[in-house]
Amino acid sequence: MAHKHGHARERIQFANAEDKQEFSKFPTKAGRRSLSRSISQSSTDSYSSAASYTDSSDDETSPRDKAQVNSHGSTDFCVKNIKQAEFGRREIEIAEQDMSALISLRKRAQGEKPLAGAKIVGCTHITAQTAVLIETLVALGAQCRWTACNIYSTQNEVAAALAEIGVAVFAWKGESEDDFWWCIDRCVNTEGWQANMILDDGGDLTHWVYKKYPSVFKKVRGIVEESVTGVHRLYQLSKAGKLCVPAMNVNDSVTKQKFDNLYCCRESILDGLKRTTDIMFGGKQVVVCGYGEVGKGCCTALKALGAIVCITEIDPICALQACMDGFRVVKLSEVIRQMDVVITCTGNKNVVSREQLDRMKNGCIVCNMGHSNTEIDVASLRSPELTWERVRSQVDHIIWPDGKRVVLLAEGRLLNLSCSTVPTFVLSITATTQALALIELYNAPEGRYKQDVYLLPKKMDEYVASLHLPNFDAHLTELSDEQAKYMGLNKNGPFKPNYYRY
Amino acid sequence: MAHKHGHARERIQFANAEDKQEFSKFPTKAGRRSLSRSISQSSTDSYSSAASYTDSSDDETSPRDKAQVNSHGSTDFCVKNIKQAEFGRREIEIAEQDMSALISLRKRAQGEKPLAGAKIVGCTHITAQTAVLIETLVALGAQCRWTACNIYSTQNEVAAALAEIGVAVFAWKGESEDDFWWCIDRCVNTEGWQANMILDDGGDLTHWVYKKYPSVFKKVRGIVEESVTGVHRLYQLSKAGKLCVPAMNVNDSVTKQKFDNLYCCRESILDGLKRTTDIMFGGKQVVVCGYGEVGKGCCTALKALGAIVCITEIDPICALQACMDGFRVVKLSEVIRQMDVVITCTGNKNVVSREQLDRMKNGCIVCNMGHSNTEIDVASLRSPELTWERVRSQVDHIIWPDGKRVVLLAEGRLLNLSCSTVPTFVLSITATTQALALIELYNAPEGRYKQDVYLLPKKMDEYVASLHLPNFDAHLTELSDEQAKYMGLNKNGPFKPNYYRY
Amino acid sequence: MAHKHGHARERIQFANAEDKQEFSKFPTKAGRRSLSRSISQSSTDSYSSAASYTDSSDDETSPRDKAQVNSHGSTDFCVKNIKQAEFGRREIEIAEQDMSALISLRKRAQGEKPLAGAKIVGCTHITAQTAVLIETLVALGAQCRWTACNIYSTQNEVAAALAEIGVAVFAWKGESEDDFWWCIDRCVNTEGWQANMILDDGGDLTHWVYKKYPSVFKKVRGIVEESVTGVHRLYQLSKAGKLCVPAMNVNDSVTKQKFDNLYCCRESILDGLKRTTDIMFGGKQVVVCGYGEVGKGCCTALKALGAIVCITEIDPICALQACMDGFRVVKLSEVIRQMDVVITCTGNKNVVSREQLDRMKNGCIVCNMGHSNTEIDVASLRSPELTWERVRSQVDHIIWPDGKRVVLLAEGRLLNLSCSTVPTFVLSITATTQALALIELYNAPEGRYKQDVYLLPKKMDEYVASLHLPNFDAHLTELSDEQAKYMGLNKNGPFKPNYYRY
Amino acid sequence: MAHKHGHARERIQFANAEDKQEFSKFPTKAGRRSLSRSISQSSTDSYSSAASYTDSSDDETSPRDKAQVNSHGSTDFCVKNIKQAEFGRREIEIAEQDMSALISLRKRAQGEKPLAGAKIVGCTHITAQTAVLIETLVALGAQCRWTACNIYSTQNEVAAALAEIGVAVFAWKGESEDDFWWCIDRCVNTEGWQANMILDDGGDLTHWVYKKYPSVFKKVRGIVEESVTGVHRLYQLSKAGKLCVPAMNVNDSVTKQKFDNLYCCRESILDGLKRTTDIMFGGKQVVVCGYGEVGKGCCTALKALGAIVCITEIDPICALQACMDGFRVVKLSEVIRQMDVVITCTGNKNVVSREQLDRMKNGCIVCNMGHSNTEIDVASLRSPELTWERVRSQVDHIIWPDGKRVVLLAEGRLLNLSCSTVPTFVLSITATTQALALIELYNAPEGRYKQDVYLLPKKMDEYVASLHLPNFDAHLTELSDEQAKYMGLNKNGPFKPNYYRY
Repeated sequence: MAHKHGHARERIQFANAEDKQEFSKFPTKAGRRSLSRSISQSSTDSYSSAASYTDSSDDETSPRDKAQVNSHGSTDFCVKNIKQAEFGRREIEIAEQDMSALISLRKRAQGEKPLAGAKIVGCTHITAQTAVLIETLVALGAQCRWTACNIYSTQNEVAAALAEIGVAVFAWKGESEDDFWWCIDRCVNTEGWQANMILDDGGDLTHWVYKKYPSVFKKVRGIVEESVTGVHRLYQLSKAGKLCVPAMNVNDSVTKQKFDNLYCCRESILDGLKRTTDIMFGGKQVVVCGYGEVGKGCCTALKALGAIVCITEIDPICALQACMDGFRVVKLSEVIRQMDVVITCTGNKNVVSREQLDRMKNGCIVCNMGHSNTEIDVASLRSPELTWERVRSQVDHIIWPDGKRVVLLAEGRLLNLSCSTVPTFVLSITATTQALALIELYNAPEGRYKQDVYLLPKKMDEYVASLHLPNFDAHLTELSDEQAKYMGLNKNGPFKPNYYRY
Repeated sequence: MAHKHGHARERIQFANAEDKQEFSKFPTKAGRRSLSRSISQSSTDSYSSAASYTDSSDDETSPRDKAQVNSHGSTDFCVKNIKQAEFGRREIEIAEQDMSALISLRKRAQGEKPLAGAKIVGCTHITAQTAVLIETLVALGAQCRWTACNIYSTQNEVAAALAEIGVAVFAWKGESEDDFWWCIDRCVNTEGWQANMILDDGGDLTHWVYKKYPSVFKKVRGIVEESVTGVHRLYQLSKAGKLCVPAMNVNDSVTKQKFDNLYCCRESILDGLKRTTDIMFGGKQVVVCGYGEVGKGCCTALKALGAIVCITEIDPICALQACMDGFRVVKLSEVIRQMDVVITCTGNKNVVSREQLDRMKNGCIVCNMGHSNTEIDVASLRSPELTWERVRSQVDHIIWPDGKRVVLLAEGRLLNLSCSTVPTFVLSITATTQALALIELYNAPEGRYKQDVYLLPKKMDEYVASLHLPNFDAHLTELSDEQAKYMGLNKNGPFKPNYYRY
Repeated sequence: MAHKHGHARERIQFANAEDKQEFSKFPTKAGRRSLSRSISQSSTDSYSSAASYTDSSDDETSPRDKAQVNSHGSTDFCVKNIKQAEFGRREIEIAEQDMSALISLRKRAQGEKPLAGAKIVGCTHITAQTAVLIETLVALGAQCRWTACNIYSTQNEVAAALAEIGVAVFAWKGESEDDFWWCIDRCVNTEGWQANMILDDGGDLTHWVYKKYPSVFKKVRGIVEESVTGVHRLYQLSKAGKLCVPAMNVNDSVTKQKFDNLYCCRESILDGLKRTTDIMFGGKQVVVCGYGEVGKGCCTALKALGAIVCITEIDPICALQACMDGFRVVKLSEVIRQMDVVITCTGNKNVVSREQLDRMKNGCIVCNMGHSNTEIDVASLRSPELTWERVRSQVDHIIWPDGKRVVLLAEGRLLNLSCSTVPTFVLSITATTQALALIELYNAPEGRYKQDVYLLPKKMDEYVASLHLPNFDAHLTELSDEQAKYMGLNKNGPFKPNYYRY
Repeated sequence: MAHKHGHARERIQFANAEDKQEFSKFPTKAGRRSLSRSISQSSTDSYSSAASYTDSSDDETSPRDKAQVNSHGSTDFCVKNIKQAEFGRREIEIAEQDMSALISLRKRAQGEKPLAGAKIVGCTHITAQTAVLIETLVALGAQCRWTACNIYSTQNEVAAALAEIGVAVFAWKGESEDDFWWCIDRCVNTEGWQANMILDDGGDLTHWVYKKYPSVFKKVRGIVEESVTGVHRLYQLSKAGKLCVPAMNVNDSVTKQKFDNLYCCRESILDGLKRTTDIMFGGKQVVVCGYGEVGKGCCTALKALGAIVCITEIDPICALQACMDGFRVVKLSEVIRQMDVVITCTGNKNVVSREQLDRMKNGCIVCNMGHSNTEIDVASLRSPELTWERVRSQVDHIIWPDGKRVVLLAEGRLLNLSCSTVPTFVLSITATTQALALIELYNAPEGRYKQDVYLLPKKMDEYVASLHLPNFDAHLTELSDEQAKYMGLNKNGPFKPNYYRY
């Protein structure tokens, strides 16, 4: 396989059809979304905001061809430039300030070292926030080898900082497809060290181990997976009876869902639109397609800043919620001519069709907050009668023959990943959930978890939440014995039935 | 059993201990709440708002001792005064204007008469809204006999209007306990008519049939129950293996939950406080105990009107939501001295204790939106050193020896039931759900439903919602075939997995 | 002049044309509004909410024909029933709890008795809140004689409580026109007592003194007037060179304007609609005519509760504000067919015409928050083809031949005066402003105020505000000497230029 | 005078004391703020966002030393690089899309050329938005010569585009102080062309003409000035009897004030904080110092996004508004330890003192939205015991000896100028106002305007607003003849008295 750069492809081809069938099917339920998706979907997305803090030196030598050594003499890593370690350390320290839950977890669990003996191989975005997670795992006793789940998202200086303190990191920004699998392989396949825990984001690492080193699973106590796609793959393995270790689905934990979707989108929709277009929100007519958690977050923020928002929905229950929340529920075709901004949040495809793009007014902004890059039919815009003009990074003007311009953001990819930043606090919640899931699986008595996919116990969800309350100086109330008895609850939780909707 | 009036008791005594054990346990989960509760809990609550439109004539003759006949010559009913029928008809017509979903259901299903042959015995609040439900059932082919689930809540003129058109109604405002059971008995035990469907609210009717006429269940195709308490009783029967027909739990359907709790409380907290105290919300310091759906609704409304709101929580996940929504999370004792208003929404008991009442500032308003009347320790205020002064209906000043006054609303009972009205639209959702549940159970092929408690299928939930969209002139979007396939959905729903949180 | 009851007339006829010309012209500027208007406009408005706490005994004897004496032996008053004094006292005490600014003023100024020697004749609404004002004036040294500015608004029990402590009150609920002027006369024309200050609301007292006892003005140090109409009359007198004492316009002070309009309407629109119609706000389509302070208050509240609000405007600046605040700006005719609620806030006439009423959909609610009762063309509805049905107090259904019903509230009179309560806190601001204006005029060195109409000095406005801050436990920051110098301000204010818009 | 770069100085020294006295005094009223301030205050502020679209080539030759010619052969300009004209043209075209009011003004007034014969010399920020203004003036018949009011804010490519179409532009990004005055001089002092109108922003151009070419005023019909400082200077000249032509104060027009302050800050506070710190707003404790229009805008936005906001105020009226709007009013010292973010909006100095900076918690973000760079005592932080660390552009960490970090944005300069963009729409309002003011002064019949400072007539304010309504598809309602008469208004406005507060 040659070094090929990934821009043009949407999906990595697996070697044989069977693999493909096993791993490539998309998740089919709406309303789910993850910041972290497998290379199949998102390893080609660029991270503009991350990018801006990242070295863009013109050193074109492939890291695979460089000989590097950290200050402790180790060469068991492969990063862009080990000399960036100090800069990376500062980024990690900044991230730590908003990730006090993990720091707190370090302190609480450090004495007992609940991960002593754990050998974790990880495949995630490599950012300052991930570094705080990895260093937490190390502080709790684990050994870690790490690689990137996305060929563009690695912060090189952070990777350098991790390599400098002895974590075996294999990752850099701008990997080729071949580099991607080479890095994964280097993490897994090393002399004298065998992983007993897997932390995955997208399922590519898990897949690689299945294909190349199935014997590793004999020692693995569990897999922790955080992405929609990766979780989907695991459920398929489970259904097919091929899952041979317990797996923890951290994607669907309440705190992650609400923060990733409702709260995070509430903030990032404004940021993404502002950074790209300098739009004034007051008085703008906006249609939001889809009133799931993502749509709810977008609508809340836009309405609060003075936009006039209407929504489209296919589900009458969500539509009724939109009504009660004060949004007109319309068909896109009824309003498309008047809209200043069109935002898709559906998880569906071709929600904004060429026909609707044709009817938009001059200057209309179109973007996607939902899922992958299928919601807007961008392909239909790549036709000879239309002119594309790149006016800023992530901003294209599509110009119709009559001079009408439509402003397309991020070429229809996820706006908040492409054009805004994700608050560290949100990432902290996910990272803390991952750490607890690893501790749970690693320390569970034999037999508690079978070869199946589990959700984090609600009590642990509540523990994740509780670790984040000090950030807000929030003070929980404790049940009295009498009250606990009256409610039929344990004083320490869990406090809600599993089906509780929050 | 003598005619005793119900004010002093909180709970009806069953004849033997076994009954009591079976039926009397309270629901133990927080975050659930119903407008309609069994006589065990709520038949003694007064409905001030309903009351205000109701005849308060000083005719003291018991309806049981009167001979009344409607204009068609029927005497198979027992109401306060059949002559109020015309006034009641007007109230029903007003209610119909906001219950177009039921009217629409009448039209859609009227041709096929899906309830032809159904003999429904019902026990619910008897209000104009219930009348719209009952008349819908009749329009769909059913015969109905009806009684009240609450000794105070009957709108006499509405009962008269129903009796006038031939519904066998046995109910009036201000029944004694003996009257209550007599009415139920008259509904069930009648010559030449045997119920084959039960619609219950609180479980008292179901209980009566179990005790007195168990053979009725041989013909009954199902029970539809809408209250927290009634549903709890059914689950206990089911667990004990004693449930002998299918039952439908309409209390936990999404639309009912969200409307009854989040949206309805969002409106009624303002209304309840305003009608009782004429309070100005702007700038008031308010603590809301509990950030479940009820608390969320209260907080949203109060914040929107300029109150400064903080919350107390025992559950770290809800606490984290409160933080993200912009509310300080505190312990009650930390803030109690500064608060202008204290609102309980927990489902728990003694959330506001005497100690905290002692520390409140002069003029502090205390009320309960949550559950029953246990949340505020009202009993502790009935002590000799404190003076109670009734300043308005539902408003007491409790006066401390130093002159400090605390303003207690509705004696700690549910504020929105006691001091505000429930929007017809909310009741429409519940009533439509009940009608669909009856249709579903009555028409289900043998074997689809066992002797167990079921939730309404999600598709029917969605149908209930869709029937209410025209009220808002909301237009749903339809999936294309291609989109439905991509999403893995049926074009007609259901659109979400069962665990979806909305 | 015979005893005629006031329902049918809108305006009292003056004896000759000149009078009429002088006093009857309406204020012509939009955006101003007062809770208290002259008998010419509003003495016929009924105060339903006040009414509900007021004795409705069937004692039909005119108070003028009764001999009453208070417990101190005085007979210098005329009220409905002196025996209601104790009940009235309790209402006053309740009001005092929310009027701590006046209580605080009493304490601060009580030592120096700044109104010692003042003889104040007053003509205002007589409510518990006014009583707190009057008793404050007395505490500061004044003697007071008082009458009502509105024939319906007097709280009889409060009048009794005032009479009981020796204030010469002449007022009752349900005065005839003749009674109205008789009461005014009894206040002014009394042996051995001559007013030196006038506190008026609507200008009728001032007018009476001008007509009947012009010599009184020789001793009067000033007039304090709070209503739009009364102020308008004063400016006309001033323009005509006929104003012979200084007058203080307290209607246009910032605090009064913002509280009476923006903040008070924000709360009362919800209350007024809820009490009359039990409407659910969520999802309702509402058009608000006029986006002045009143309209802004209404829109804010309705939007916050989930209504979908659009506005109509004639002024492009206010229209632009509406846009930026997130409201669509439309012509009424464009949207009238879709609206669930129509609210007028313009100060104009025939804003809702018969033609528009004809086009409304079934169940549409129409009400007026703006001014007088001219905004909705109610007269056009009194035609034979339409049926009026009174469904509740203040609620009429107007029924079209095809069965369509329009719900008209308060017959087009001010909704918040007719169907909701005014928070005591708002009245406290006005009352405090009145008290300070009286103190200022009474104590001003000769020559400071000429025979003209003045606004309260900004510093006094600020003082009124500062007296209300303790209600909110608000802590002001003080300028350092250095900062005051930098800002060019006095450390004690005033802090803003006169044209500051707030 | 040598070429000196301006970083180190805060204020330009005038030649003699008298000048200084005349021009240098700061505006002294709080609550006012302008995007455009004189060189005395702001010519040294950097415009980061503008900067990002501006050429940063390393061509170090001074434009004054270059010989450049546009494609029409003209050399009467001095810009960085005439070759950037095409890039600048695109920026202007993008700006035009959001400035349709000016385009519309061009169309409406183009036939009659109301500025035919006008020779305008202008001194403003030179941005794409200004270019749309200048080209509008040209389209209406004017000849223009233009220079920059700020040594850093010029968009070089826009200056080039203007020069290319024949406008005599003298400006570039990064002028020295000497360059600054040289450019002004070249605009004013040119052979065969004498200005008859002045458009100024900050008063430096006006000052230069006064000092060097006083005879120019013989032909000048008026000055239009938009900045706080420039207006202040004009009022001082007027007071001193030295103003020799009419001047129009466009700074204090309603639309400009509300948009520049309330609405613009509502959007830019979020943008500025997000771009610099990636902060998550939800649950953050924020104190906003000052509740004028700027503070109101900041508070609205932050609260809407879930921050918990309290405010500090010196003015009891604004404090009372804050209370009613739902914000706790505190002293800074009471809350400083708990705050996550501190924002100054006062117009005052040393609002955040070193003592308070010492007490902030680790990670606290401090920034200024108010005025100049005096609000935060930044100077006190430049002391040896504290370490400054520049972590990003415009973001410094100040590190205390114990490791505590305070995050200072833009070194205490205006956050929204330094770290966010100003929506084009806001600038459109200002530019339209300037254009109308020029037309009004240029065309006014002799004698209408004396040698004084005027506000734009309210009718013109309303016209500016009306020109912007089509952006929102807003439809104004027109008064009927009958209504206009009733209201005492002209159907075409003005619609409000001058003192109306909006």
